[in-house]
Amino acid sequence: MPQTPVTTPVLDLTADAVTLTRQLCDIESVSLGERDIADAVEEALWALPHLKVVRRGHTVVARTDLGLGDRVVIAGHLDTVPVNDNMPSRLDEATGLLHGLGTCDMKGGDAVILRLAATVTAPVRDVTYVLYEAEEIDAEFNGLHKLSQSDPELMTGDFAILMEPSDAVVEAGCQGTLRVEVRTRGERAHSARSWKGVNAIHGAADVLARLAGYEARRPVIDGLEYHEGLNAVFIRGGVAGNVLPDECVVEVNFRFAPDRSEAEAEAFVRDFFDGYDVTLTDTAPGALPGLDQPAAKAFLEAVGGVANPKFGWTDVARFSALGVPAVNYGPGDPLLAHKQEEHVPVEQVLRCERQLAAWLRGEQGGEQGGEQDA
Amino acid sequence: MPQTPVTTPVLDLTADAVTLTRQLCDIESVSLGERDIADAVEEALWALPHLKVVRRGHTVVARTDLGLGDRVVIAGHLDTVPVNDNMPSRLDEATGLLHGLGTCDMKGGDAVILRLAATVTAPVRDVTYVLYEAEEIDAEFNGLHKLSQSDPELMTGDFAILMEPSDAVVEAGCQGTLRVEVRTRGERAHSARSWKGVNAIHGAADVLARLAGYEARRPVIDGLEYHEGLNAVFIRGGVAGNVLPDECVVEVNFRFAPDRSEAEAEAFVRDFFDGYDVTLTDTAPGALPGLDQPAAKAFLEAVGGVANPKFGWTDVARFSALGVPAVNYGPGDPLLAHKQEEHVPVEQVLRCERQLAAWLRGEQGGEQGGEQDA
Repeated sequence: MPQTPVTTPVLDLTADAVTLTRQLCDIESVSLGERDIADAVEEALWALPHLKVVRRGHTVVARTDLGLGDRVVIAGHLDTVPVNDNMPSRLDEATGLLHGLGTCDMKGGDAVILRLAATVTAPVRDVTYVLYEAEEIDAEFNGLHKLSQSDPELMTGDFAILMEPSDAVVEAGCQGTLRVEVRTRGERAHSARSWKGVNAIHGAADVLARLAGYEARRPVIDGLEYHEGLNAVFIRGGVAGNVLPDECVVEVNFRFAPDRSEAEAEAFVRDFFDGYDVTLTDTAPGALPGLDQPAAKAFLEAVGGVANPKFGWTDVARFSALGVPAVNYGPGDPLLAHKQEEHVPVEQVLRCERQLAAWLRGEQGGEQGGEQDA
Repeated sequence: MPQTPVTTPVLDLTADAVTLTRQLCDIESVSLGERDIADAVEEALWALPHLKVVRRGHTVVARTDLGLGDRVVIAGHLDTVPVNDNMPSRLDEATGLLHGLGTCDMKGGDAVILRLAATVTAPVRDVTYVLYEAEEIDAEFNGLHKLSQSDPELMTGDFAILMEPSDAVVEAGCQGTLRVEVRTRGERAHSARSWKGVNAIHGAADVLARLAGYEARRPVIDGLEYHEGLNAVFIRGGVAGNVLPDECVVEVNFRFAPDRSEAEAEAFVRDFFDGYDVTLTDTAPGALPGLDQPAAKAFLEAVGGVANPKFGWTDVARFSALGVPAVNYGPGDPLLAHKQEEHVPVEQVLRCERQLAAWLRGEQGGEQGGEQDA
């Protein structure tokens, strides 16, 4: 057991999931400042004799090793976006809402993970719990990304659940994302003698016209309807107030359904902007919903049978890249993530814990999910 | 006579115009640093008993007061753009080019002015010489602008010549300029769920299409063909790489022929972008060529009979605003202004001096101009 400083905050895994959510929220853990919370999580997990604990940086992994046929991975990130006058947490008994930084994104989910780790001592499938650092910042710092590079075996299994806020309804797969710069060129000239130059901003008219005329594809995959999107997210051009610009750059973000690979998505965009200079700047693959996998089917049934497509990109794609089907499923409204006023309904935290515990224990009978957002 | 420090550089008005150009070039006088050169100019002009000298800031005005029927104003600015490893001046005897900062823009013209002031002691028309500060920077510092506010009578006359580089060919009038911001608006949304928002950059497609389809008007005024221009000089939009932008701004510069007023030019632009949010940010009027005026006709005849339209905006418009017809006429290629490698053909400096002196003395017989650039 590693040495831990006496100042490590203590997490009480015997408390209910809402109390534990509050304990987690009240340990400040803005990205790159996860030492304290990771220490507390590690210490709490070491106290559980049925789990093997490994730490990498400020990412903590705890596993059962019962030799069961199946293994499920349940993961959540420990970091938050910056504090915004929303610490510590505050429980509103009247509305049943727990307010404060991290309540929604995603310490409610982390609390569920820790409660499962503490209470489900004899699961019917082996479980790997992953509590990781730095999800809210650049991928190079992301604990799950780093783990996939250093110790991919700690992430492998038959199925993975990422406890990102999804209103406690399964969100399956995720769309991929890529960015390109579409560049038009011209020739500088003084704007008083504009016929001596070529205006690169005017040359972007057709680029924007193509974007304005784009019609989104909406493929149905495993019964879920995805919805692609092709959007200019930045445009820039200009040299001086009296000069015809010789360059205009349109930065375009393509969100693509998970039936396209990154290469296919790139080919689509290059074809769409045929005739223009297109530079790929950023790309991340989608993740197929994988709801045809037995482990996924069983889980979906256990939590109410309803799944929605996930439009945004999430870390589920990191599991997909390792061949592990993965879904998002966690308490909290995803639209509240990163907002000053984020909160989580305590009912969702408790329901997620109940449903996952029942599924891990192999108990029969699904429970219906709550309201859905789509 | 004001006290001048003993370190004032001395200008020798008995030297030839090329030598005098070099003396002026070798006094550093970047905008807002014209004290030394203005002191030297003032001291040299005070030594001439046929002139009355007035100083305002670092602008020096010297006038004959012979009670003649006509008065002509001959003006040049004393400042330069910043030093760019191009001081002191360097004369290339083989090519007849004088190189260095200010040679073209516009100390060659200033030298001609000082030579005329020194040598034309009995002109047939009264003359006002104006050597002014801060032409290369914001209008609020411009010596001619300040003089037009404080002492407009020092700028009035029947005709004005601004000795900006024009390849020693008369450039008449100038086009006006105005800038507007054309703004499209949308509604932010996460780019993964783009159908929930409205993309303001896509909304600018039609703005750019209108600009790309613009056809320039080319009116003929006093025999000179002007050439308007409507150009995007900047475009900007974007919030984040994963957000649909809610605003896109296209900054447009309209260069308009001097037969339109500023109000008419603005109305044209507003009509051109009908349906969009248009904000006027900057405007300056054009100047009619005024070549139908007797004084202008006589001058044009004296210097060779050829005039070109001036497309760029220059300080001639400040004279026009006071009701004084004005032209650009000076040594040096205007396209070399502000360039590190600026230079002036010494032949043009000497020719300008010769032609202007002959005209001021009322000598008969025009001299043909050199090659023309249009």
